[in-house]
Amino acid sequence: MNVIQSLKYLTPMVNPNYKIDEWKIIEEGFLPEDNRASESLFSIGNGKLGQRANFEEQYSGDSLQGSYVAGVYYPDKTRVGWWKNGYPEYFAKVLNAANWIGIYITINDRELDLAGCRVLSFRRELDMKEGLLTRSFVAELAGGEQVEVVSRRFLSLVRTHTGAIHYSLRVLNFDGEIGISPYLDLDVRNEDANYNEKFWIEAWQEAKEGEACITGKTKKLDFHVCTGMKYVLLKNGVPVSENPKVISELKFVGNECNCVVGRGDKVELYKYAVNLSTLDHPVETLVEKVHLHLEEAFDTGFEGLLAEHRKAWQAKWDESDIVIEGDPVAQQAIRFNIFQLNQTYTGEDERLNIGPKGFTGEKYGGSTYWDTEAFALPFYLSTAPPRIARNLILYRYKQLGKAIENATKLGFRDGAALYPMVTMNGEECHNEWEITFEEIHRNGAIAFAILNYIRHTGDEAYLAEAGLEVLVAISRFWAQRVNISPRLKKYVMLGVTGPNEYENNVNNNWYTNTMAAWTLEYTMESLGKVKRESPTDFERIVKKSALDEEAELKHWKDIVKNMYYPVSEEHGVFLQQDGFLDKDPMTVGELDPVQRPLNQHWSWDRILRSRFIKQADVLQGLYFLEHRYDRDTIRRNYEFYEQWTVHESSLSPCIHSILASAIGDIDKAYELYLRTARLDLDDYNREVDEGLHITSMAGTWLAIVEGFGGMRIRDGMIHFNPMIPSRWKSYSFKVRFRDNLMNIHVRQDRIEISNLSPADLQVTVYGKVYPVEKGKKVQIDNSK
Amino acid sequence: MNVIQSLKYLTPMVNPNYKIDEWKIIEEGFLPEDNRASESLFSIGNGKLGQRANFEEQYSGDSLQGSYVAGVYYPDKTRVGWWKNGYPEYFAKVLNAANWIGIYITINDRELDLAGCRVLSFRRELDMKEGLLTRSFVAELAGGEQVEVVSRRFLSLVRTHTGAIHYSLRVLNFDGEIGISPYLDLDVRNEDANYNEKFWIEAWQEAKEGEACITGKTKKLDFHVCTGMKYVLLKNGVPVSENPKVISELKFVGNECNCVVGRGDKVELYKYAVNLSTLDHPVETLVEKVHLHLEEAFDTGFEGLLAEHRKAWQAKWDESDIVIEGDPVAQQAIRFNIFQLNQTYTGEDERLNIGPKGFTGEKYGGSTYWDTEAFALPFYLSTAPPRIARNLILYRYKQLGKAIENATKLGFRDGAALYPMVTMNGEECHNEWEITFEEIHRNGAIAFAILNYIRHTGDEAYLAEAGLEVLVAISRFWAQRVNISPRLKKYVMLGVTGPNEYENNVNNNWYTNTMAAWTLEYTMESLGKVKRESPTDFERIVKKSALDEEAELKHWKDIVKNMYYPVSEEHGVFLQQDGFLDKDPMTVGELDPVQRPLNQHWSWDRILRSRFIKQADVLQGLYFLEHRYDRDTIRRNYEFYEQWTVHESSLSPCIHSILASAIGDIDKAYELYLRTARLDLDDYNREVDEGLHITSMAGTWLAIVEGFGGMRIRDGMIHFNPMIPSRWKSYSFKVRFRDNLMNIHVRQDRIEISNLSPADLQVTVYGKVYPVEKGKKVQIDNSK
Repeated sequence: MNVIQSLKYLTPMVNPNYKIDEWKIIEEGFLPEDNRASESLFSIGNGKLGQRANFEEQYSGDSLQGSYVAGVYYPDKTRVGWWKNGYPEYFAKVLNAANWIGIYITINDRELDLAGCRVLSFRRELDMKEGLLTRSFVAELAGGEQVEVVSRRFLSLVRTHTGAIHYSLRVLNFDGEIGISPYLDLDVRNEDANYNEKFWIEAWQEAKEGEACITGKTKKLDFHVCTGMKYVLLKNGVPVSENPKVISELKFVGNECNCVVGRGDKVELYKYAVNLSTLDHPVETLVEKVHLHLEEAFDTGFEGLLAEHRKAWQAKWDESDIVIEGDPVAQQAIRFNIFQLNQTYTGEDERLNIGPKGFTGEKYGGSTYWDTEAFALPFYLSTAPPRIARNLILYRYKQLGKAIENATKLGFRDGAALYPMVTMNGEECHNEWEITFEEIHRNGAIAFAILNYIRHTGDEAYLAEAGLEVLVAISRFWAQRVNISPRLKKYVMLGVTGPNEYENNVNNNWYTNTMAAWTLEYTMESLGKVKRESPTDFERIVKKSALDEEAELKHWKDIVKNMYYPVSEEHGVFLQQDGFLDKDPMTVGELDPVQRPLNQHWSWDRILRSRFIKQADVLQGLYFLEHRYDRDTIRRNYEFYEQWTVHESSLSPCIHSILASAIGDIDKAYELYLRTARLDLDDYNREVDEGLHITSMAGTWLAIVEGFGGMRIRDGMIHFNPMIPSRWKSYSFKVRFRDNLMNIHVRQDRIEISNLSPADLQVTVYGKVYPVEKGKKVQIDNSK
Repeated sequence: MNVIQSLKYLTPMVNPNYKIDEWKIIEEGFLPEDNRASESLFSIGNGKLGQRANFEEQYSGDSLQGSYVAGVYYPDKTRVGWWKNGYPEYFAKVLNAANWIGIYITINDRELDLAGCRVLSFRRELDMKEGLLTRSFVAELAGGEQVEVVSRRFLSLVRTHTGAIHYSLRVLNFDGEIGISPYLDLDVRNEDANYNEKFWIEAWQEAKEGEACITGKTKKLDFHVCTGMKYVLLKNGVPVSENPKVISELKFVGNECNCVVGRGDKVELYKYAVNLSTLDHPVETLVEKVHLHLEEAFDTGFEGLLAEHRKAWQAKWDESDIVIEGDPVAQQAIRFNIFQLNQTYTGEDERLNIGPKGFTGEKYGGSTYWDTEAFALPFYLSTAPPRIARNLILYRYKQLGKAIENATKLGFRDGAALYPMVTMNGEECHNEWEITFEEIHRNGAIAFAILNYIRHTGDEAYLAEAGLEVLVAISRFWAQRVNISPRLKKYVMLGVTGPNEYENNVNNNWYTNTMAAWTLEYTMESLGKVKRESPTDFERIVKKSALDEEAELKHWKDIVKNMYYPVSEEHGVFLQQDGFLDKDPMTVGELDPVQRPLNQHWSWDRILRSRFIKQADVLQGLYFLEHRYDRDTIRRNYEFYEQWTVHESSLSPCIHSILASAIGDIDKAYELYLRTARLDLDDYNREVDEGLHITSMAGTWLAIVEGFGGMRIRDGMIHFNPMIPSRWKSYSFKVRFRDNLMNIHVRQDRIEISNLSPADLQVTVYGKVYPVEKGKKVQIDNSK
């Protein structure tokens, strides 16, 4: 593909809906047709709660309501024509929970509904530095009444059960009456419910003056979530003394307040809400705890809560910010990615994980995919205390039993484990046979994450403690999943779907075969290591796993030695799968741009048999196992596959960007970086209305740190091989590595590495080792 | 596979639930756990109406209620996790319509419900010669009351809207009161409704003494079906004069009658029902017509109706019976198959077609599959007047526009047609992405049926009239569906599912590639023929199809010349698909029988990557195009694939049986014949509870006529090459061929061919031509 063609499809316009700002996402002007997209982009969250940027006041326009409580899900019935053995029994989905933001507003008995008003001005602003969403507008109602509203809200990063709203309304041109009714609404549904069911039953409620509380129970699994609210209403700064009307209906509680107002008056509502679930509290104490936290929030007040929240965000940014000088578009994008990652997962709760859309939408929402191991883990390894990453990999260790059950359901035996592609609790619960069912490659990424964790943290004990059991079980799966081809006299792996989901049920996906053989090697190496270094642990693991060391390892060695890998001698590349070279060779460059994204324009039949690649597949393997391949091999494969890669998975451009950096193609790496970093802001794949691509945001971070920065962990050392896009003045990022925290500042002419930790540091830059004393920095010239 | 292993899995016990009888299916003893299976097996039908063998009186045990009206269907919403471009919008299903058989019985105010009685005797008998279902039982109620019931019913083959029931009840040991309430119930549902909806709305109803009528309207498509009933009640042969109570509830109409009875009394109900739909009558005349037909039925009376029905069946049998001497098990089976075929499709209504389960169950019910062309057509070609088979192929001609639309939805263009795999009206409406979506091979069978029809009937004009347009459109599809493999420099066809549905999305399915190239050849040959013989028609067709004769034919020729066919030199066989030889070579003989059927014991993952074949695939191609291959080639392929074929499709064993005959393996052919003929009676695949395998029953007929009888049409001549299983004394069948009707009687030592037609006949037997004068017979010695 030539560069012109590449640019044509890789560089869309920066989305004109949103302004460029280094710390903020700003929407100016009311765009009802893009409201769902904005609701996703302006989502707020704190790891426990997530809230789409829905309006507080009623809105009859297009909107996807979304209030999410982490870990609370529903096992919806799957939707499949004819169920077959091995299909998941249910599809778990993040639950749209009680609407806690609601404030019903009337003006002279007319609803304030932006879909039915003249909107004279409108602005939404997400301040990423502070974690604060502000929305302001001036609306004119049918009677000519004009009001100016400013609403600010956040989900506290400190009190992760608490949200706070400051809703302020100024009367511009009339005298009359304003109705303000803060409420909680449990009568919500998931838009993607497979059979259009509602999932919540009201278990309890209480409404009184100034306060209300409602407990919902899920129809299955008996999750209870108690949502409480407390508020104060001010007119021109003075609390309104008139008694509100208490509203108590089925699944709905609130207060109805009325204010007589005149021109220039300002009415303000401070609403505090708390959400607690039985994930954290016994059901009988839920209400009491909610009351307690509501009182605390109320006493602390909006500004007090915001101040501590702001401080917590500052600490997050101190650890994880990436600063780019000279490119505000790129700067905004990377901060948006880091911000959303930190909103989604804080690592404090080991039962939680990272859903591909976090808590910004329903689709895939909340469930754990291989994205966690393949993309998100490295971000948390470098930017958070080691226990966070450890929680992420322990999550899979704890689900080993379920992974063995999953494999058993498919006909595997003797302790073979197949981790789920989609899960809430370790059970497979995907909803899409034709893509997900055969994506067994996830087992490889889950094994690889163990190596990744250990080499980054140096936590060698993890193998004996937990990792090895997982590796043995995954290895057994691979050993049973391959068979000897009578034709090739080699081990083959038939009927799989690789990371490229635009193919299905292929034979010998190079990535899967490669990761399978790698797993076997790493497992055998790890068994040897633990046997040597912790013989007692080794005995325990062998016994627990009922490992037949001699027979099983003999088989594994044979597989490693005789695995079949499809290759093309002609092109000097690894082949994505057996049939890849039989496909029509039309490239992305030859594709009419109006047909993109393909999944919205082509039939599934046409996509499947085309060469177009949804996401990195062979390249994903080269990324994981880069140290095994020379630069020319990587370049050949990169250039070969990039021709057909349409990057319609959010997880694709980041890997391509990293490899483009690895082979020194900085311009291409930059293009691909922008594509991954601004995927949601610029809505490349026309789907941000459904929610944000949270897990791929970690890939964006990787595209800078491992891509431009060239960070690698090899032989216990941290290496950098920095490059810098030509339009950047500089960029800098921080990395934790074992006992060290360092800042890497890359300028066009030099690199500066600062050791921010209380221990000395050795770092390799461009292949040369530099010692950096604690608190000191080193500069490396890069001006050649 | 050795013979012992083969027998082990191919010869199950004859089902002990049913007695062997040459003309009847008989169930003795009450078997509630197998009731659904018996309800399927004892189904009655007349081409317009179908009725499972549900009980007339209420039954609280396990049952699948089924009353079907041909051509009346519902476009149910498909059930798919995430819909993709090209997936069908709806899944059409045969509708369970108003229950017209219902007679609610009470005895001393207690329900007569066999699930709540002591059943002292029970017998169900389907007389295939007469088309009559009889059920008799003696039941003892909780109060000790014993009654003997005999119910007889049929769906008239003469008045295809009419059903009649004679329900007779004898009081054995008590004095008391009997309640008898004949009714019509429209409050029915389809058990396989995807979203558990009911599909009927009541449009109108009327109930009076002795008569009731109800009209249902489907929630979508506005089909109206009016069901009426009229009855007479007798006590000891004398009409009961007491006035019944009229029942009229939502979706339910009937009469409630009561009879004071004493020991030995006999109470009899004659119930007549008529079903008419808007398929045949304008909605405003429905009720009037139903009344008219009811009056006629009532006046003719049960025995009168039965007499004319019996006569009509006799005529059917005269044309289509196969007589087997010396093997009642085989005789019963073939009659059961022929009986069900004649019950399902009479060919009188050109809008109807043949559903894989006919009107005996819901799954696949009523929709048209490739089964029609591949299996059912030859049966009707040989056993019915030519217009019947013509109606079957015209059905596809009439749907050509929809087939072009179907292809367009998948991204094809310029008049390419993809006929649907499942349809009611020409639109694709399958419900199973993972099997059906890529089964484009149906296009081949539909093209082949044109040849089959013409060569059998001699109706050469059909090409110009209709066939050629279909062939051109299908050829265009194949020409667009292949691509040139840059690796092989040949045309390949990627991402298809062949007839073997235990593989999915494979490359170069030999059957599909072969039938595609064959279609192109036949189309070009046919274009040439029509151009030569009917130049005006040719011009019209070229214009209508916008055929670019030069360019398109050049491309088609190139495809025919350069199509890729996977083969194994080593095994001397055609390969089912590119990856077949990479699969684990475990054979059926090595499979533990408790794992059969695989689809009920193995995960879909395991099935897909195994070598096990659900149904004939390469062999299906060899069957269609047998004349192209020598006997050794057929033998090698047959022996190769039979090793892995589990015959879990009903459409499989018949083809294998025919090929076993073709290569002279009569013992194997006989085994496979029994398997296909008794598939439902002996419930090989454990699914007869869902309904019967109607279309495969035509395959059973083929296994005798084309298999044992060796019938072939070649070069305008009819050929026979008869063999006879060793345990048979003789078998005979009739065949229509062009202007002739003949009877072929095969004995162990000689063959007798009788010319039953008013024209002379030439027939080839064992390669030698025999003239047979009208009304004469010829005997051929076979005693060597």
